[in-house]
Amino acid sequence: VGYEEVAKLALERCFFFPAAEIYGDALAGFWEYGPLGVSLKNRVVELWRREMVRRDGMLEVDGSVILPERVFAASGHLRGFADPVVECLRCGSVHRADKLIEQIIGALVPEKLSEKELDGLLEKNQARCPKCGGQLSKTRRFNMMFKLGVGAREAAPAYLRPETCQSIFLDFPRVFRTMRCKLPAALAQVGRSFRNEISPRQGLIRLREMIQAEIEIFFNPAKAGDYHKFRLVEDCELSIQPLDSSERKPFSCKQAVKEGLIANELIAYYMALLQQFYDKTGIPGSEMRYREMGAEERAFYAEQGWDLEVRTSLGWLELVACNYRTDYDLRGHARESGRDLAIMDEGKVLPHVFELSMGIDRTVYSIMEHSLTREKERLVLKVPPYLAPIQVAVFPLVNRKGLPDEAKRIHNMLRTSFDVFYDDSGSIGRRYRRQDEVGTPCCVTVDYQTMEDKTVTVRDRDTMLQDRTGVDAILGHIREKVSFPSG
Amino acid sequence: VGYEEVAKLALERCFFFPAAEIYGDALAGFWEYGPLGVSLKNRVVELWRREMVRRDGMLEVDGSVILPERVFAASGHLRGFADPVVECLRCGSVHRADKLIEQIIGALVPEKLSEKELDGLLEKNQARCPKCGGQLSKTRRFNMMFKLGVGAREAAPAYLRPETCQSIFLDFPRVFRTMRCKLPAALAQVGRSFRNEISPRQGLIRLREMIQAEIEIFFNPAKAGDYHKFRLVEDCELSIQPLDSSERKPFSCKQAVKEGLIANELIAYYMALLQQFYDKTGIPGSEMRYREMGAEERAFYAEQGWDLEVRTSLGWLELVACNYRTDYDLRGHARESGRDLAIMDEGKVLPHVFELSMGIDRTVYSIMEHSLTREKERLVLKVPPYLAPIQVAVFPLVNRKGLPDEAKRIHNMLRTSFDVFYDDSGSIGRRYRRQDEVGTPCCVTVDYQTMEDKTVTVRDRDTMLQDRTGVDAILGHIREKVSFPSG
Repeated sequence: VGYEEVAKLALERCFFFPAAEIYGDALAGFWEYGPLGVSLKNRVVELWRREMVRRDGMLEVDGSVILPERVFAASGHLRGFADPVVECLRCGSVHRADKLIEQIIGALVPEKLSEKELDGLLEKNQARCPKCGGQLSKTRRFNMMFKLGVGAREAAPAYLRPETCQSIFLDFPRVFRTMRCKLPAALAQVGRSFRNEISPRQGLIRLREMIQAEIEIFFNPAKAGDYHKFRLVEDCELSIQPLDSSERKPFSCKQAVKEGLIANELIAYYMALLQQFYDKTGIPGSEMRYREMGAEERAFYAEQGWDLEVRTSLGWLELVACNYRTDYDLRGHARESGRDLAIMDEGKVLPHVFELSMGIDRTVYSIMEHSLTREKERLVLKVPPYLAPIQVAVFPLVNRKGLPDEAKRIHNMLRTSFDVFYDDSGSIGRRYRRQDEVGTPCCVTVDYQTMEDKTVTVRDRDTMLQDRTGVDAILGHIREKVSFPSG
Repeated sequence: VGYEEVAKLALERCFFFPAAEIYGDALAGFWEYGPLGVSLKNRVVELWRREMVRRDGMLEVDGSVILPERVFAASGHLRGFADPVVECLRCGSVHRADKLIEQIIGALVPEKLSEKELDGLLEKNQARCPKCGGQLSKTRRFNMMFKLGVGAREAAPAYLRPETCQSIFLDFPRVFRTMRCKLPAALAQVGRSFRNEISPRQGLIRLREMIQAEIEIFFNPAKAGDYHKFRLVEDCELSIQPLDSSERKPFSCKQAVKEGLIANELIAYYMALLQQFYDKTGIPGSEMRYREMGAEERAFYAEQGWDLEVRTSLGWLELVACNYRTDYDLRGHARESGRDLAIMDEGKVLPHVFELSMGIDRTVYSIMEHSLTREKERLVLKVPPYLAPIQVAVFPLVNRKGLPDEAKRIHNMLRTSFDVFYDDSGSIGRRYRRQDEVGTPCCVTVDYQTMEDKTVTVRDRDTMLQDRTGVDAILGHIREKVSFPSG
């Protein structure tokens, strides 16, 4: 099952759809989550919070998306977060200069070429507008941050954050002090980021407004080599594609550190924790890889980088950028703000940072693509039960003889604790199918026997078997079925 | 306990603090939630989701915060969401014209006066700049929406939504169709809104970037008088201050509808549901009131309105605006988009809307102010246990004889399921105090006896009593203590 089928399900069953769609698609790259998407997304975030934030003892913050200009002077985004673009002198369409060259030469163009170098390559390859064949302008830099003004008069310049993590760097001094942290300390945040992408595309894949779950681990670089939690993951297997290879191969964390593939134990530990999180999303480990980033692929702030990627019908897709940002960000903010951001850790140190920057929207999409399964005549979203957007559906077998009242009573009993859907229209088979395609693990049916002995059938999504259970036992049964993995 | 003490606790214990504070307060009105604030806020949202969204069977969406200009042409915000301002011709400071007049005359100025009328009043009252005494400019309108441009060339005008509900109106057609809704249908959303306030102030009270939880109930106006859920709340008591009164008085919902104080049963039902939600936040019902809004206080889209207010050390504070928006919004979007947004409900109807627009930040603040209690030498945040930011703290009595290892084992056992804080520094009494002031309901202490019989003490925040419990029973004990009210 591929992109088209997921997109169709998403639209028809209200997982996600374009923003302001009644106005046509004037603004591409903005999407909405409908009720089923909200529920799936919130559960993915809750799984992330359990398996990453709480399991590791991270501290979560939730920061402002509007930040003053100086923040981005310090972070380098004012200067560095800009794409090279050319404009068609005939039709006016705008294109990424590097992508245009890549399409012509069929190879990657390094990220750090100057405008002049790009113009040289465009000329050499006789590039023309891909829309109308027109002549192209010279290359200019287009900053992808959204700018706005704050205040009524001579508005103060501010930007929508292009990555959530800048809030974390700004909050670090207070959080570290007031929460009585020691290094290494990990801060986490889930929230929106904004990028004025030139070519947004493919639904949740390349958005102008997206949801990120970012983790920044602050550590003393002198101590990253010997990390006490490393023994918890040393045998954990990662699929790794090093820079000098075009294939991925399995490595234990121990082996990967020993052979120098992963720089140190601390980084290996967090890469393993992240893989273990994805193992619980239902995406098969065999469809994922850590790909090492070369200098020309890395963001401007990163000294080393790994992308955790997933194989989809659209090709390999980045889900999490894992960047070794060194002390780049704290150093920048210390310089620009004039504050001393060093902290004590057997002597003064400006912490280094390793980051796990997860795209929640892409993760939601990938979970859907990997769990949507066609089985004979039925389409089933085989997500793990704890991620299912609707946890239980309640049906009266027929709409008479008191069955709807009893079904509604059960619906009411379950509704504050679970996401429940009540459905009384169409045949039972058809109602099961509707729930199958959105992944509902349990369907409770009230039938004639219910009225006699207070039992209902509970039908399992995957086995399609129906068990009879006492009405009293439903709540416990469902709680057990849909609860998050513990331990 | 008042505003200053809450603000102090918030800063010192990392509930909330100014955004980008290392840069000074160049941009007022932007705040961050630290780890304890994130946790408290998320639990308030979860309570709202349980008690409002799920209990009533509402459908939740999560929409884009950037929306195209036409949306706000349709909604009336381009024209109507503007404050009248004057500028000081000497010092350049900007002031709300109406507020300036109100300060001089000591009475409310109607919201709908023209610039000319305001200039007349300013002149008549010889208004001068309150900062420097300088002469003032003429009144102009200042639109409070943040504007930005989308796309690389001739950027498309767009705005940050000033209220989350516009996403709901835009999503209504698809959600209603694909979720197979019938009227009345309620859509809900929690998310950020943005207002370029001229005078942001007082921490979470007046923000430029805020979190709203909004509910829009779409209904057939011909049927609102007789609403089947009304019987569930008819005896529920609300404290109501009608337009013609300067005092609030208790009314049952039944009485309030009968006497024509509340327009119809549907509106009364949702006002009661909302009050029942707040009853579960720990804010005493005696400190809240529904105040009817006069024409001059209502927003431009509202035909009737109630503010649910709470008494705080800062005076009465609006927590939820309850507005009868009629078909104003759907009519506007139908006109501007050219789509027919009417739906079938025994004939074609353009639904009317009643809205509950909740400020989450103010709600968080008010819960803190009303629960923070000084008891002899201790400061206790007496929030309901299911809202406590830290659910359980784990202490080793001393840092030797194997106690820390056992305490860490227990910490690990609890950490994915609960928000747990591990503390091994200072006397036990001092560690209890630290937890009391952030509201932690349970403190588990590992002592010498633990090493002999596998029991620990569990200390209760409110009674300060310590119970001995088996290590095996801790998880169940805490789950019971901190779980949300069911039913």
